[in-house]
Amino acid sequence: MSQNDLAAAPGASEGTVTIALAGALGRMGQALARTLDGRTDAVVVARFDRPGGLVEGLVDRDAALAAAEVVIDFTVPEASVALAEAAAALADKDGGGPALIIGSTGFSDEQNARIAAAATRLAIVKSGNYSLGVNMLMGLVRQAAAALPAADWDVEVYEAHHRRKIDAPSGTALMLAQAAADGRGVGLGQVADRGRDGMTGPRKAGAIGFSVVRGGGIIGEHSVIFAGEEEVLTLSHSATDRGLFARGAVAAALWVKGRPPGLYDMQDVLGFEN
Amino acid sequence: MSQNDLAAAPGASEGTVTIALAGALGRMGQALARTLDGRTDAVVVARFDRPGGLVEGLVDRDAALAAAEVVIDFTVPEASVALAEAAAALADKDGGGPALIIGSTGFSDEQNARIAAAATRLAIVKSGNYSLGVNMLMGLVRQAAAALPAADWDVEVYEAHHRRKIDAPSGTALMLAQAAADGRGVGLGQVADRGRDGMTGPRKAGAIGFSVVRGGGIIGEHSVIFAGEEEVLTLSHSATDRGLFARGAVAAALWVKGRPPGLYDMQDVLGFEN
Amino acid sequence: MSQNDLAAAPGASEGTVTIALAGALGRMGQALARTLDGRTDAVVVARFDRPGGLVEGLVDRDAALAAAEVVIDFTVPEASVALAEAAAALADKDGGGPALIIGSTGFSDEQNARIAAAATRLAIVKSGNYSLGVNMLMGLVRQAAAALPAADWDVEVYEAHHRRKIDAPSGTALMLAQAAADGRGVGLGQVADRGRDGMTGPRKAGAIGFSVVRGGGIIGEHSVIFAGEEEVLTLSHSATDRGLFARGAVAAALWVKGRPPGLYDMQDVLGFEN
Amino acid sequence: MSQNDLAAAPGASEGTVTIALAGALGRMGQALARTLDGRTDAVVVARFDRPGGLVEGLVDRDAALAAAEVVIDFTVPEASVALAEAAAALADKDGGGPALIIGSTGFSDEQNARIAAAATRLAIVKSGNYSLGVNMLMGLVRQAAAALPAADWDVEVYEAHHRRKIDAPSGTALMLAQAAADGRGVGLGQVADRGRDGMTGPRKAGAIGFSVVRGGGIIGEHSVIFAGEEEVLTLSHSATDRGLFARGAVAAALWVKGRPPGLYDMQDVLGFEN
Repeated sequence: MSQNDLAAAPGASEGTVTIALAGALGRMGQALARTLDGRTDAVVVARFDRPGGLVEGLVDRDAALAAAEVVIDFTVPEASVALAEAAAALADKDGGGPALIIGSTGFSDEQNARIAAAATRLAIVKSGNYSLGVNMLMGLVRQAAAALPAADWDVEVYEAHHRRKIDAPSGTALMLAQAAADGRGVGLGQVADRGRDGMTGPRKAGAIGFSVVRGGGIIGEHSVIFAGEEEVLTLSHSATDRGLFARGAVAAALWVKGRPPGLYDMQDVLGFEN
Repeated sequence: MSQNDLAAAPGASEGTVTIALAGALGRMGQALARTLDGRTDAVVVARFDRPGGLVEGLVDRDAALAAAEVVIDFTVPEASVALAEAAAALADKDGGGPALIIGSTGFSDEQNARIAAAATRLAIVKSGNYSLGVNMLMGLVRQAAAALPAADWDVEVYEAHHRRKIDAPSGTALMLAQAAADGRGVGLGQVADRGRDGMTGPRKAGAIGFSVVRGGGIIGEHSVIFAGEEEVLTLSHSATDRGLFARGAVAAALWVKGRPPGLYDMQDVLGFEN
Repeated sequence: MSQNDLAAAPGASEGTVTIALAGALGRMGQALARTLDGRTDAVVVARFDRPGGLVEGLVDRDAALAAAEVVIDFTVPEASVALAEAAAALADKDGGGPALIIGSTGFSDEQNARIAAAATRLAIVKSGNYSLGVNMLMGLVRQAAAALPAADWDVEVYEAHHRRKIDAPSGTALMLAQAAADGRGVGLGQVADRGRDGMTGPRKAGAIGFSVVRGGGIIGEHSVIFAGEEEVLTLSHSATDRGLFARGAVAAALWVKGRPPGLYDMQDVLGFEN
Repeated sequence: MSQNDLAAAPGASEGTVTIALAGALGRMGQALARTLDGRTDAVVVARFDRPGGLVEGLVDRDAALAAAEVVIDFTVPEASVALAEAAAALADKDGGGPALIIGSTGFSDEQNARIAAAATRLAIVKSGNYSLGVNMLMGLVRQAAAALPAADWDVEVYEAHHRRKIDAPSGTALMLAQAAADGRGVGLGQVADRGRDGMTGPRKAGAIGFSVVRGGGIIGEHSVIFAGEEEVLTLSHSATDRGLFARGAVAAALWVKGRPPGLYDMQDVLGFEN
């Protein structure tokens, strides 16, 4: 992006990061636009959505990549991988492509590997949850799981979301369970106990259980429960405003500008040690 | 039971109900013994457990049926049905058999029919939960479910229990869901959504969902959640002492003495209108 | 209001209620405007704010009273009383003044009496909380308080709100405590236990206690806790969207149109028996 | 304590710690006796209560100090200070007095100084809460308070206890608030906001608020709430069995045997870094 382009962006200046919004017509794309409206430290210079969509005010993806310092992408895995590879190609050519903030979830191992490959050539922040509170919670969960003996303390992850959510448990619930599994030094796949129903028998030693509530407009609740024989420790997060994740993504965009290539997450943005 | 027998029971008097404990060696049998220890309004005159168990202080079932005004039974469905039929036979013979308090859970339709048949000849109280609070909660849930439009308010039933519990959801969770289904005039079987996991798609309209936590020594937590688009109403019960259910069963025993034959539940004992 | 006036209101028709917004520049006035934006069953025909405020798009109070079928007023007690008396004078003169929806809180006894006097001449709905869920909760609390013996079950009212709230406990917490006191047939003033701190001694028998959390952007949480020796029953409400109260007030406006004079509350609007 | 004495203690052996119980007739003294009943790693060799109490099975304090390796004391500040000084005198004389586990709460600054002086001559563990979970929670609260900016995140401490509790907030609530204040590098006395009631005005920036519930038989609930504008992080502990604190004190007794003089707390016993 040249100085000329920057000068043309309304409100952009030396201390400003210029942003392109992927999935601009989706729920998060619109929330991001509202969050950025009126800010001077981060300004939207391009909006795009899936190829073929000819909507007023939208540009195509390549124009967006050329126009912005950072692209914020809350779409679907396929689109995010294609975006990362296009940005990497741009970086290879002239060293000037944008950094990426990726908030899509549900990547396969193969898709994760392609994102990681792209991240050797540009800076990518990728996280299943952009809130400060949830990322703080992940660190606390990991510690508690490491300190409380697995034989005495059963770990359960509870989450509640609105009726429109289509997958269970939530990506954030899985991240929190992963943090607990990391703290205990076990693989989540080996210990996850999902969809508990019927004659289950006694709880398996060392299991990490999941429970899921769906209803109404619940924005997002998560609890990690450490249940001992005589006491229960519960670490919880509740989102009270839908703008939360948009604001976290913008904070990541401000942080990533000028970083060297690499795959970062919100723990890095927030300066937490893993 | 003759006046002579009563006179022989230590502490028994005109205002006292004499009690036999079924499943005396089990967890609830022992809790009942502790609860009754030192009381003068209800005294244990016989204890028994499964046939063949020759343990000091235990009698056989028929001796227990002959000795007590009320038998309290927290065992398993088969044993409860056999007990009810033996008591009914006794009632047919001399009009003198004991009343029953049944706290077992997991009856089949056929077993329920046999209990109901026995209850035409003696008084039986049967409930999945003997606490005042849970029975109060059932009435409140039914009303809320009737008043809050199903199109706008999603019902979810959450429960948490200790790691030793072998079935999910709990019998009490199912009773609470039944109360919500009754309030809405729908069949629970048609709307129950259990073991939610994976790519579930959006929540089904009118569903009653279940979520289950298992861990440590949690005595028993139940919540019925009514989730609207902009607000959530939650009706919850928490047991804080294992003696709770034993005390409720004893209250039912005091209530049932002298009642005509019939199948009662804790709503009757507590004087709640259904 | 004549048919001519109605015809002039943009979007108004036979099945539409015309609305004036008091306190139009305040937080709730703006939320009401957003809620009504685009609706066809209720349309804003006038907006006003404190006398002297000459802001574009605002009219004075008397013009607003003349233009609308219903005035929605979330302001302060003095302004609400003056509004009610002006509307009553209009009703006396030509039988044609608007009905009122009053959501202000903190009225003195004398102010309440003046509102009641005005309500002999026009229809007024007045409530401390316009959500369906909270009004449902009030009815459930009253019943539970009536059914659970005060000697065994301690009632506590908990509430949490955002950091900007200036009074404690909230008006809704006081309404819920009043419902519990009504259920028990006691005066709230005699049993309220507020601001518990220091060497309090054991809990007073029959007290209704209050606890208050303030922080961040919490929209509004209320719980009524019935604590027994071995079990706890908790009835809770959580607001998850700030538009909730605006939508409830609009529902009240739709209901009140054409009602005879009288002082109504949300229990009436919702068809609950007191 | 000589080998001869140890040999005389019933059940004592090389791997066993011998224990004297102070306040043996009180609620915690009895809970400790129940917890230790049947254990072989820690055995009660003496029980005592306030001077003058001549009850069967009790000895006087000096005999208890001579008989045991560790004294567990959940009494009142005056008695604990006197005990610590008597144990220190014994340590001075022959280097052989017992270590102390002190669970009393409500010490004055002067009393704390006298305990600290005694702890230069013997090992003393002193804590307001002997549960593993609460001590884990303190560490997590300190970290979260250090990481979450005070301008954006309001800290509130909530606690609920049974109707018999005579002080508010609980000692544990104050410990948790102290942990939050430590994390922020502020003095708790400067920021504590207790007994919130009436026209309070908006929340003070940087305050740590307290809320208190009392009712029924609630064993003990504590939550530390970090409330941001769009999200809330809550770290909670719930005691589900009254034996919890007794078991923690016994764990401390097993740990303290053979430690050099010093004033320790449960964070040390559990191996947490402060």
